[in-house]
Amino acid sequence: MKILLNGKDIELHQGQSVFDAAFSMDPAIAREALCCVAGDQVKELTYQPAEGEEITLLTFEDDRAKKVFWHTSSHLLAQAVKRIYPNAKLAIGPAIDAGFYYDFEVETPFTAEDLQKITAEMKKIVKERLKLERFELSAEEAKELMKDEPYKQELIEEHAGKGEKISFYRQGDFTDLCAGPHLFDVSKIKAIALLSATGAYWRGDANRPMLQRIYGVSFLKAAELEEHLAKLEEARKRDHNKLGRELEYFTTSDVVGQGLPIMLPKGAKVIQTLQRWVEDEEEKRGYLLTKTPLMAKSDLYKISGHWDHYLDGMFVLGDPADETKECFAMRPMTCPFQYQVYLNRMRSYRDLPMRLGETSTLFRNEESGEMHGLIRVRQFTISEGHLILRPDQLEEEFKGCLELAKYCLDTVGMLEDCTFRFSQWDPNNTDKYIGTPEQWEEAQGIMGKILDDLGVEYTIGIDEAAFYGPKLDIQYRNVFGKEDTIVTIQVDQLLAEQFDMTYIDQNGQKVRPYIIHRTSLGCYERTLAYLIEKYAGALPTWMAPTQVRVLPISEKTLDKASEVYETLRAAGIRVELDERNEKIGYKIREAQMQKIPFMVIIGEKEAEAGTVSVRGRQDGDLGVMPVADFLTYMKDVIETKAKK
Amino acid sequence: MKILLNGKDIELHQGQSVFDAAFSMDPAIAREALCCVAGDQVKELTYQPAEGEEITLLTFEDDRAKKVFWHTSSHLLAQAVKRIYPNAKLAIGPAIDAGFYYDFEVETPFTAEDLQKITAEMKKIVKERLKLERFELSAEEAKELMKDEPYKQELIEEHAGKGEKISFYRQGDFTDLCAGPHLFDVSKIKAIALLSATGAYWRGDANRPMLQRIYGVSFLKAAELEEHLAKLEEARKRDHNKLGRELEYFTTSDVVGQGLPIMLPKGAKVIQTLQRWVEDEEEKRGYLLTKTPLMAKSDLYKISGHWDHYLDGMFVLGDPADETKECFAMRPMTCPFQYQVYLNRMRSYRDLPMRLGETSTLFRNEESGEMHGLIRVRQFTISEGHLILRPDQLEEEFKGCLELAKYCLDTVGMLEDCTFRFSQWDPNNTDKYIGTPEQWEEAQGIMGKILDDLGVEYTIGIDEAAFYGPKLDIQYRNVFGKEDTIVTIQVDQLLAEQFDMTYIDQNGQKVRPYIIHRTSLGCYERTLAYLIEKYAGALPTWMAPTQVRVLPISEKTLDKASEVYETLRAAGIRVELDERNEKIGYKIREAQMQKIPFMVIIGEKEAEAGTVSVRGRQDGDLGVMPVADFLTYMKDVIETKAKK
Repeated sequence: MKILLNGKDIELHQGQSVFDAAFSMDPAIAREALCCVAGDQVKELTYQPAEGEEITLLTFEDDRAKKVFWHTSSHLLAQAVKRIYPNAKLAIGPAIDAGFYYDFEVETPFTAEDLQKITAEMKKIVKERLKLERFELSAEEAKELMKDEPYKQELIEEHAGKGEKISFYRQGDFTDLCAGPHLFDVSKIKAIALLSATGAYWRGDANRPMLQRIYGVSFLKAAELEEHLAKLEEARKRDHNKLGRELEYFTTSDVVGQGLPIMLPKGAKVIQTLQRWVEDEEEKRGYLLTKTPLMAKSDLYKISGHWDHYLDGMFVLGDPADETKECFAMRPMTCPFQYQVYLNRMRSYRDLPMRLGETSTLFRNEESGEMHGLIRVRQFTISEGHLILRPDQLEEEFKGCLELAKYCLDTVGMLEDCTFRFSQWDPNNTDKYIGTPEQWEEAQGIMGKILDDLGVEYTIGIDEAAFYGPKLDIQYRNVFGKEDTIVTIQVDQLLAEQFDMTYIDQNGQKVRPYIIHRTSLGCYERTLAYLIEKYAGALPTWMAPTQVRVLPISEKTLDKASEVYETLRAAGIRVELDERNEKIGYKIREAQMQKIPFMVIIGEKEAEAGTVSVRGRQDGDLGVMPVADFLTYMKDVIETKAKK
Repeated sequence: MKILLNGKDIELHQGQSVFDAAFSMDPAIAREALCCVAGDQVKELTYQPAEGEEITLLTFEDDRAKKVFWHTSSHLLAQAVKRIYPNAKLAIGPAIDAGFYYDFEVETPFTAEDLQKITAEMKKIVKERLKLERFELSAEEAKELMKDEPYKQELIEEHAGKGEKISFYRQGDFTDLCAGPHLFDVSKIKAIALLSATGAYWRGDANRPMLQRIYGVSFLKAAELEEHLAKLEEARKRDHNKLGRELEYFTTSDVVGQGLPIMLPKGAKVIQTLQRWVEDEEEKRGYLLTKTPLMAKSDLYKISGHWDHYLDGMFVLGDPADETKECFAMRPMTCPFQYQVYLNRMRSYRDLPMRLGETSTLFRNEESGEMHGLIRVRQFTISEGHLILRPDQLEEEFKGCLELAKYCLDTVGMLEDCTFRFSQWDPNNTDKYIGTPEQWEEAQGIMGKILDDLGVEYTIGIDEAAFYGPKLDIQYRNVFGKEDTIVTIQVDQLLAEQFDMTYIDQNGQKVRPYIIHRTSLGCYERTLAYLIEKYAGALPTWMAPTQVRVLPISEKTLDKASEVYETLRAAGIRVELDERNEKIGYKIREAQMQKIPFMVIIGEKEAEAGTVSVRGRQDGDLGVMPVADFLTYMKDVIETKAKK
């Protein structure tokens, strides 16, 4: 099927949205096309129609459509704030994964009452059915228009520096500097909730002014909003940053610093369990373990390109400007380090594929304001690995990587919340990347073909590639609806070139290998956070820090309980004995609060008969059984990594 | 028994050397007392006797006696060099663990012929039977005496800065700035070998001049020297820095930097095996695992004292002088990080002892010139741990730590090469330490009592304590005779005070706990180096990177060999299959070169009968046996951590 869009013919495949079809031709057209939610019932995005023209672009469920809706909602928020607080200065107001925010400079922080007032004002504006109009100005004109808005002035300066025209969106009495796209009018934003107000530094920089940020979310219908708020409430209870601390999985410390979580024994045990499992699984699949340094001289990063393309993200030891002294940096990625293993001696085609794996610690110099629990951190541990390959091995090995990642995510129970994203470079923003357009075309072509051959359903992310190559990102949607990349698999030939990696082929020629960069499970800190949230702290038995708690009913059965405890412990079960002189009901409630998978209760009858009474967290009362039977049962639950 | 030494009465216990007795009274007297090797046969150190006075101090076998002997030998070396090269400038010439060296500024590096000439000159001087005289000068006079020696001028400046008198030792035409002590005369240095000459930066600083260092060793008798040189030759073959690279345990890279070894798959596998074993052993003994950040803000180190007492040894990220920005440092020790785990909530006397363990990566900012293979490195991994205790638990827990360390060292086979050292502070050098003399007296008193109660035989090291407390150091003597600390156990109350760590005692009072800092096995990189050297690369099976290699005699038995390989692999044995089309003799030789513990050879007879022919690296031909029997045998060898 063919349609006409912005004067260009677009070929539409079966089931493909106009947006995606346009995108594959020309992202610029697609961005322009993404501009409205049409009709109360339709929930569809439609291109600004010419006379009589109407074309379906995207459903509202698509993230990109939601983001347009929420972006217009943020303008609505700013308009309401300006009406109530005319002196408020505007900063920025983007859509985010689960709603929108807007940052303002105001004299006093917003209170809950303020938010109510603002919400009411927003609802009033919606009824005014204001249309959004786009217009462009020169920098000069833009500055004049925004003369009372110091933050906008700064943004205009930046655009002007790049020689760009400045675009604006106007809705009634409110005009904002904005690239768009937006809804045609505000009338569809029928259900609005402002969720919170917090301080936020201008541009996330602790040395710039502190602004006030209002978070909100909006929908087409009140019922959708209610459903969303209910989910949010449930998610809040599961928030790893709250629950993970309460259950003593981790803590943080002001004197250690932000983004540097401290794993308490329970968190450390889960991560140890996951790491060993992944290392062993990789070994089974032919990976060789390495252990490479966590830091290197700038020389290494100059070869890899990190020095030119990633320096801001790195922790540097020494002064990069002083050429007379050695300058080191903590590693933000493992690639150039693991390549040294390959480079240790000449390799032959017979040595390939070489699959290298490492439980690797990485460091990223993130801004203080961006830190969050175990999810946004400055140091993390990840199952990194690189496969060095002949061209004929590329597809098979890519498939192996994908299968391993899917196996790992499935085993921990997270695969059901994952989607796939093919992250490509941006041909209009080449400064961020190494290599030529031809090399990128080739690499993206190969990867696209592999993904299609493997039948992977994916979306495309432009300007989301690594600086050295395209990626398949496995995206995880957490309990708050926020999406993060959890695993990536990347195809790369550029770094092999930078490091002059070669092998001798069957004809005795030195040739360049392909490299796959990959993880099996993503970073362990973040995985732990997601698992705590997904399971509301009740982690599956095989990874739970404590698997069984033994509860003697009274002091009389303490000896027998100790014996059972020792039997389980000797068998490698992670077991605790509650030997306190408390009522059994109290002990049971506490074990439940601690989300311990199995309780073994020993009363006088059990003590005499050499049996135990077992309660499973998931399955409830499992009855009375001999200790040996319970041990067999537990071993099976743990070895099969049962989801209980 | 009482003796008179330097005008002081010394009480001598049964079997105690005068040196140790004097040391326990006053280290300054002891140092003065350590001054001669008397008599060709006696091999004893004697105090410079007053008229008619003679007292036995130490045997030559004692390291401290050897060091006096070797220190005088270094003066002898410098004297010979000055006679042959009058323009050579003198730097420094200490005794080291296995001999001595002297650094010179000369125009051209020393050749092998030069070393022969110098040795001959040294032997000539020995026959001159020159006496060594000590004298002291003011800084002014010292500078005049050493006016042609720029390096000595620098040293004199430093002593002068501290207001110290400058001491010299003279032997005939040669005088050197030196604190001593020395032999009375050079005549006992009868057997001399100069071993090598290499470049070395003045003060180990790559920005200072490159000097020429001559290494040598000397003995009382030619036979002793010959024995030493033979051992050295054997040690050289085992040198981990040579063998470890040849066997592909590790490598290094110029672009990564010195002191940052890269573990190749074999090295990584050994370290993984050791780490898991130690972690599991600690868990069995009631340790809780933690995982704490590898870096922190300066704030943490200011509390711990590292900022004031250890800053030079740390890698700093950011500018310590700029107070307006966050400044981080990589951790040189785990203590202040693991304390945050304890500090997570209020603790009660019932929670103690709390035994925290972590496989911890540490960073030390060593000078480039000081790096060596896996032994002197800038980043290393260690089984760190801290026990937080009530006073009544101190002795029992100290014993537990010592038992664990001894168990670990014994299991890897290193305990037989270990001695114990009680490292104390130096009351004359208090700047290096935190805490009051009373606190040190108390801590050292407690630790001394524990060591005596446990019957640990130890020597005393003054000024060798950690800056926060005394240590029991387990010293390992490597194949070159060089001694290094491999494990330390420390008693500390000062850091508990700095971090305001408390617990609620039985009376409801907040009180200060004791802390034991300890390792179970020391750092893994260094341990791997020692193991490679001790076993000449033939690591015991349980930790060997490859445990079995399967060798089909010809292509005809390849299928059966693959089957055996899969059986062993499925059972968790680290096995390789040599499927190359080579002669069996060649394959066997190569497996031997690779020091693989077991070979399984499969000929047609074995293939038919379902058996394997087994060769053990240590026990030779183990005969033909069913695959299942071999598997049982292997599992037993691995599980019992047999020394084969």
